Amino acid sequence: MISRAALHGSRGAQAAVGARALSSGTEWFPSVHPIKFAGPDSKDPLSFKHYNASQVVMGKTMADWCRFSVCWWHSFRAAGADPFGSPTIARAWDDGTETIENATRRVDAAFEFFVKLGVPFYTFHDVDVTPLGRDLAEFNANFDRMQEVLAAKQAETGVQLLWGTANLFSHPRYMNGGMTSPDFGVFARAGAQVRKAMTVTHELGGSNYVFWGGREGFQTILNTRPRQELEQAAAFLRMVVKHKQDIGAEYQLLIEPKPREPMKHQYDYDAQTVIGFLHQHDLQDHFKVNVEPNHTTLAGHSYEHDIIMASQLGMLGSIDANTGDELLGWDTDQFPSNVRQATLTMDAVVAQGGLAPGGLNFDCKVRRESTDPADLFIAHIGAMDTFARGLKAAAAMREDGAMSSLRAQRYASWDTDAGRRAMAGELTLDDLERIALEGPAAEAGTASGKQELYEMELSRFV
Amino acid sequence: MISRAALHGSRGAQAAVGARALSSGTEWFPSVHPIKFAGPDSKDPLSFKHYNASQVVMGKTMADWCRFSVCWWHSFRAAGADPFGSPTIARAWDDGTETIENATRRVDAAFEFFVKLGVPFYTFHDVDVTPLGRDLAEFNANFDRMQEVLAAKQAETGVQLLWGTANLFSHPRYMNGGMTSPDFGVFARAGAQVRKAMTVTHELGGSNYVFWGGREGFQTILNTRPRQELEQAAAFLRMVVKHKQDIGAEYQLLIEPKPREPMKHQYDYDAQTVIGFLHQHDLQDHFKVNVEPNHTTLAGHSYEHDIIMASQLGMLGSIDANTGDELLGWDTDQFPSNVRQATLTMDAVVAQGGLAPGGLNFDCKVRRESTDPADLFIAHIGAMDTFARGLKAAAAMREDGAMSSLRAQRYASWDTDAGRRAMAGELTLDDLERIALEGPAAEAGTASGKQELYEMELSRFV
Amino acid sequence: MISRAALHGSRGAQAAVGARALSSGTEWFPSVHPIKFAGPDSKDPLSFKHYNASQVVMGKTMADWCRFSVCWWHSFRAAGADPFGSPTIARAWDDGTETIENATRRVDAAFEFFVKLGVPFYTFHDVDVTPLGRDLAEFNANFDRMQEVLAAKQAETGVQLLWGTANLFSHPRYMNGGMTSPDFGVFARAGAQVRKAMTVTHELGGSNYVFWGGREGFQTILNTRPRQELEQAAAFLRMVVKHKQDIGAEYQLLIEPKPREPMKHQYDYDAQTVIGFLHQHDLQDHFKVNVEPNHTTLAGHSYEHDIIMASQLGMLGSIDANTGDELLGWDTDQFPSNVRQATLTMDAVVAQGGLAPGGLNFDCKVRRESTDPADLFIAHIGAMDTFARGLKAAAAMREDGAMSSLRAQRYASWDTDAGRRAMAGELTLDDLERIALEGPAAEAGTASGKQELYEMELSRFV
Amino acid sequence: MISRAALHGSRGAQAAVGARALSSGTEWFPSVHPIKFAGPDSKDPLSFKHYNASQVVMGKTMADWCRFSVCWWHSFRAAGADPFGSPTIARAWDDGTETIENATRRVDAAFEFFVKLGVPFYTFHDVDVTPLGRDLAEFNANFDRMQEVLAAKQAETGVQLLWGTANLFSHPRYMNGGMTSPDFGVFARAGAQVRKAMTVTHELGGSNYVFWGGREGFQTILNTRPRQELEQAAAFLRMVVKHKQDIGAEYQLLIEPKPREPMKHQYDYDAQTVIGFLHQHDLQDHFKVNVEPNHTTLAGHSYEHDIIMASQLGMLGSIDANTGDELLGWDTDQFPSNVRQATLTMDAVVAQGGLAPGGLNFDCKVRRESTDPADLFIAHIGAMDTFARGLKAAAAMREDGAMSSLRAQRYASWDTDAGRRAMAGELTLDDLERIALEGPAAEAGTASGKQELYEMELSRFV
Repeated sequence: MISRAALHGSRGAQAAVGARALSSGTEWFPSVHPIKFAGPDSKDPLSFKHYNASQVVMGKTMADWCRFSVCWWHSFRAAGADPFGSPTIARAWDDGTETIENATRRVDAAFEFFVKLGVPFYTFHDVDVTPLGRDLAEFNANFDRMQEVLAAKQAETGVQLLWGTANLFSHPRYMNGGMTSPDFGVFARAGAQVRKAMTVTHELGGSNYVFWGGREGFQTILNTRPRQELEQAAAFLRMVVKHKQDIGAEYQLLIEPKPREPMKHQYDYDAQTVIGFLHQHDLQDHFKVNVEPNHTTLAGHSYEHDIIMASQLGMLGSIDANTGDELLGWDTDQFPSNVRQATLTMDAVVAQGGLAPGGLNFDCKVRRESTDPADLFIAHIGAMDTFARGLKAAAAMREDGAMSSLRAQRYASWDTDAGRRAMAGELTLDDLERIALEGPAAEAGTASGKQELYEMELSRFV
Repeated sequence: MISRAALHGSRGAQAAVGARALSSGTEWFPSVHPIKFAGPDSKDPLSFKHYNASQVVMGKTMADWCRFSVCWWHSFRAAGADPFGSPTIARAWDDGTETIENATRRVDAAFEFFVKLGVPFYTFHDVDVTPLGRDLAEFNANFDRMQEVLAAKQAETGVQLLWGTANLFSHPRYMNGGMTSPDFGVFARAGAQVRKAMTVTHELGGSNYVFWGGREGFQTILNTRPRQELEQAAAFLRMVVKHKQDIGAEYQLLIEPKPREPMKHQYDYDAQTVIGFLHQHDLQDHFKVNVEPNHTTLAGHSYEHDIIMASQLGMLGSIDANTGDELLGWDTDQFPSNVRQATLTMDAVVAQGGLAPGGLNFDCKVRRESTDPADLFIAHIGAMDTFARGLKAAAAMREDGAMSSLRAQRYASWDTDAGRRAMAGELTLDDLERIALEGPAAEAGTASGKQELYEMELSRFV
Repeated sequence: MISRAALHGSRGAQAAVGARALSSGTEWFPSVHPIKFAGPDSKDPLSFKHYNASQVVMGKTMADWCRFSVCWWHSFRAAGADPFGSPTIARAWDDGTETIENATRRVDAAFEFFVKLGVPFYTFHDVDVTPLGRDLAEFNANFDRMQEVLAAKQAETGVQLLWGTANLFSHPRYMNGGMTSPDFGVFARAGAQVRKAMTVTHELGGSNYVFWGGREGFQTILNTRPRQELEQAAAFLRMVVKHKQDIGAEYQLLIEPKPREPMKHQYDYDAQTVIGFLHQHDLQDHFKVNVEPNHTTLAGHSYEHDIIMASQLGMLGSIDANTGDELLGWDTDQFPSNVRQATLTMDAVVAQGGLAPGGLNFDCKVRRESTDPADLFIAHIGAMDTFARGLKAAAAMREDGAMSSLRAQRYASWDTDAGRRAMAGELTLDDLERIALEGPAAEAGTASGKQELYEMELSRFV
Repeated sequence: MISRAALHGSRGAQAAVGARALSSGTEWFPSVHPIKFAGPDSKDPLSFKHYNASQVVMGKTMADWCRFSVCWWHSFRAAGADPFGSPTIARAWDDGTETIENATRRVDAAFEFFVKLGVPFYTFHDVDVTPLGRDLAEFNANFDRMQEVLAAKQAETGVQLLWGTANLFSHPRYMNGGMTSPDFGVFARAGAQVRKAMTVTHELGGSNYVFWGGREGFQTILNTRPRQELEQAAAFLRMVVKHKQDIGAEYQLLIEPKPREPMKHQYDYDAQTVIGFLHQHDLQDHFKVNVEPNHTTLAGHSYEHDIIMASQLGMLGSIDANTGDELLGWDTDQFPSNVRQATLTMDAVVAQGGLAPGGLNFDCKVRRESTDPADLFIAHIGAMDTFARGLKAAAAMREDGAMSSLRAQRYASWDTDAGRRAMAGELTLDDLERIALEGPAAEAGTASGKQELYEMELSRFV
């Protein structure tokens, strides 16, 4: 077995990729060459116009800032079914069977894709990579087998596991959630499944382990005991913390918020709800947040909101770098092409010094109507270029300094003795009244917020 | 000066009202007699069809369960202006001046209204009842004067103050919030204003003191430092806790969430966000939540969601008993007429044994087009009848027991030894795996959720 | 072959049902007896508390007012899959194969359900009842075979076909719509499929034929020529009108609006958009609208809006009597339980003298978590009772007359000579200026709209 | 009096502006020099980085493509009040009185602004420019007086009137709308007001006359007769057409859709609803649509949707070039800064050969917190640069041709004999069945829609 250290050894995100060739076997994307940086004037859809992995921006390579990752479920398991229609997408490597052979062919195709695209990371749910088997024991055995296949491919290519997770929402048994199921048997089964996925993620050198509570919520409050279910979740997560210690894993645990869909309501509504929940249960030192902007907009916040809020609160662990449609009420999981949003995202990433051990994971799917294999490349390239532009714009904006200087002026009154003492808890309301009665402060507060100037400044860079 | 004890003395919500006559002076609603309970067949709009204050339901009077309150701002200060039009509503007692005389006439009209309607409580912002004056000193003096006027009326009528608050959002100085303003001078002024309003509320025997952060948020993240602003809020609230102790107030402190409007984003997004914030800053023992369902629906949750969640988490302090329109994106503050929603609300209230010291405060406004003074009565009567029906339905549903029995069955598997040990933190993921591998639990989880049956059951009572 | 006349012969909606027994064969719902009216105090979930088919309300039986219909797709083809999970619901009669045998068993189970529930109508898409076959020719042959099976069951039970339709959205070929596909071959195939479904619907004595343009729209405007696609639709619908004449069908053609999902945007956005489109292409005399309230709320209108607007414009043909969730952005197709909404619906139905040849078709699905066969009955019973309550409330409200009298007063000024002449086109803006300069009209317009009183009046009946 | 011909004489949008100096009097923006094009590298907020009025793009100057216009209401009447707060913005030229003197000073300031900014057009409501007076007669006299003031300024500066309109929503009498009021007296008054505003607009050489039905809708369907109200609107608009002919006006009549706010529902929901209504009443040759994207997004459509749909249907007359926030449910009327949206807008404008006689009118307001006079310039400059970038991107995209070529391929099957005959109405469903049974068409429809490639192509230009 390949050692974890080997799998996780290369520090730099971009160093490994492409350094090792793909061993052999069928080439599943024969018409696609490894994607190269060709500069902004290129008209070739199969080239990067902006993402230049080794280009240094603010002291790090683009690859290190972006830490791009491809997700297994949308890109190697989904086939275009939606609530109103059948699958539209056929892939040459996938015969639809739940067998080790088929699963292994998918691994071959996926790693060929990762390497040709030039991404350093990938992500998976247990069921994405593992044939289901007849029961838990067989599933676990299959998972062990696939772990070996994946480990070999990681070693061969240098592509690493950004994070793993367990799917606790697709099987009928999870129709009411896993951790928060009204049925203790389901809770137990979820625990078994998470235990295994945490272990395999650890063995594969995963940098993070994620919880997305796809059905941790309710369809109707009428049949639900929300307090009990929240306490179930807390109990479960405490077992998770314990298990991580037991197996010696050092990855970051992450929770991914989503407000609704498939359920009417999900408990992990948004970043601040999750962070608040962690504090209520004293779990805040063990988990960070994996923000997906399409979930953020479903919760009624702007694209960048949860990224910024989580980052400001020291809790941004990783990003599912997709986009949705602000006017559609479901999770479209589209590939991003909005540079403005990417700029605000990368500005937050730069502000916290990078995302590691997290990354920008493309939890995105090609449209159901995008039936060509090449679309899978085009979609990822477009998204990577979008974040590369965002990174360059964020860096330029920071180097320019105008906007942060405007902000500094705006908050300057807090850099006074009274302001500092107020923040330090050294003043009372009596003190504030005295200040208000004395000072010119009573006329304060109407300095222009200059929103349009900030927007003009942002526009200079996007 | 009338003593606080006298103002707050009568324990029962309904006992006081109507027990004492209004002293004298002009009658502002001459054509309206005190509203009486006339039974469900009454066609008289100026009668209660369901609210019978002294009727006992599950061991308490309706008045004690409901603790109805009229708000000063919508019902005695607003006049129908909206972003596209001028005021439409003229009131005989209000000449539009910022004078003690006009403010006193408003007090007369308001208390006549409270008494004729038969509500035991009212609520106000400082600026609702107090002429603004030229500066803070004059405002404080005016507030002192109005405190006496209000105290006299409370003593005369037995109507009590449910809660007071300070308006930190209407004056231009608060255009960027009070506690979270980028300008320290504004923060100080807000502190002075809150200090005074807390004191007056205490002197008037108020049962609660509320914070609604109307502009505590931002219009654009570009010009904002959210972390600093959240820390400002925490610093401010710590001073509030200190001041409450200093003046010996025993009222409950409450925070009222709202996700947006007037700002693009407000920090107190919903109940769980506020509760999480309180935990992050170790303030959870000092504040509860004042839930307004119209704010809840603006946050993307169902009408009853925040009431239930706050109650389940032990944090429901009071309710601003209005309604909105799920399909309109702004705060319409309508009078409720939906019995189903009122039933779920009152079910949560009954479940926690009542709302005291909180109440059901009608933070509602008659429509801009409802220009008759009688509309003010009709609107409140309709709303009170709606909650009375909700209370009766919730009580009948509990007495029937079918729905709670369905829920108990649904969660029965947690009443096992393993279930209890899981909740108590005595199991590990290893244990859960063992249980999953052994038991029939692996087939669990697909028992029908029976949502349609729960809805049918609810329909039996509403 | 059973004659169309025989299938469509019985005039009264309720007369036929139950009059004839089910022939024989396996009983698929052995534990469910025919559902009876048991009155409002019944606690038996498998009884009607309000729907009493033969009870006369405002001169018609409840059955004739309601014309209830069960849909084939949700109730006999769907199995609980959603975008995040597998099917949860297994039915004893369905082995999952696309065979005549399986399809026939479904017919047996469905008609047993219709008869036990006591509904006079059902609806289907071609693919719901017909095994797909290898190609169009085989599909058509299968459809012929199933037509015979259905005709026999209709004759045996008296249950009639409310409407048929063709599914132009599930097959991959329809991924960009049928009528509005960019591919002419798809348009032709859609034409062939509609031609067949129109003919079979005619042969089965269907009262209506419906077009729901599930994918007639676009995912991105970037790849779309909207004008061409709208003209394709108009060309298609003109062929439909011609074909209806050719086969001598007398059913009502209906278009069902939906704003979005599965597409980003669908052309048949709402009732008024469809009606406007029909007028632009001079098709308004050939089509009416089939309104689904869950689609109405997705378009941003209140539940009852499109029902009322279509009815007022003389274009309400039929109703897909489901409900959604105003705060969820997708089509949840739930069974209705809101009496207030049902009352406004039935008020519009009563106002236009009934829905015939349309009906109230339950385009609703049991929740994915409602896995018991009995849930199918409970859900329909709850919905039928809801509309029965709505009907009784609407009738009582009309008999009471208070609300319509309030409305008559509100518009009274139009019953003047000037008002009538203005509506008749006999006045000019010059006339209006003269009237405005002369009369007291200048002070008009501020009479109270009395919304709260109308809501109180409505509450008296729901 | 200055002749209409003189006011409207100069054909080119940009020619006139700046050609004539401002006569004299107080300079209200002394610190702002006329805004110049300084190129994309300029950091001066008071310069254009992209808008170069005389630069020729695809055969026309930028000024002629854009036809920028400043609106009077937001930029010279509004002062920052919102539903939760008082005005924040004071202007030196405005003393708040409803006098000819104050109104004239506003004209001076506004035209100084127009000239310094370099826009060729402005727009107004009657009440924006005219002191209200005590009654209709006095208002009309005031309007006559202000017409002279405006005519003089137009002649002096060359700035022209893009459109005028009457405000039928702010006065209490219009609380239920103008044309659709339940009160005939209000309808008459609305007619008088529109008559006058149409005449003044004609006298001032206005290029268009607009109807925005701010309250043409309802707050509750319960008190409303929608059919009657729609017929009132049609009767009113027929009088408008007649009056236009009577006075010999040649301007374009426009209707501006908005779905809601201030009303619960407004009849002019979106572009297609309005166009459908016009067709229902045979008014489609007399009116076009004035699209405001912030209204479009409130109706649930993407920013560019109504612009494109109206243009495709030959009904796009003019654009209120603002933006909103997709996640806020009210009309924020912000200045646009999104180049992607501006590109799609200008692409539609270029596709129809320009907007004349319409234009891009900035129906936008500086944020309530943007209290500096300079913010008014910055906001407009940012917006003008945004549309200039959009125009350049749209032109480049068209010259590149890749995207239109992709679209042409996508629809190529319609360029066959059968496709053309289908569109021409020469085929029947029988023909389509024959084609479907014969051809390979049955396998059609699954060619990739390539959405991600289109998005990548768009990104090359924005």
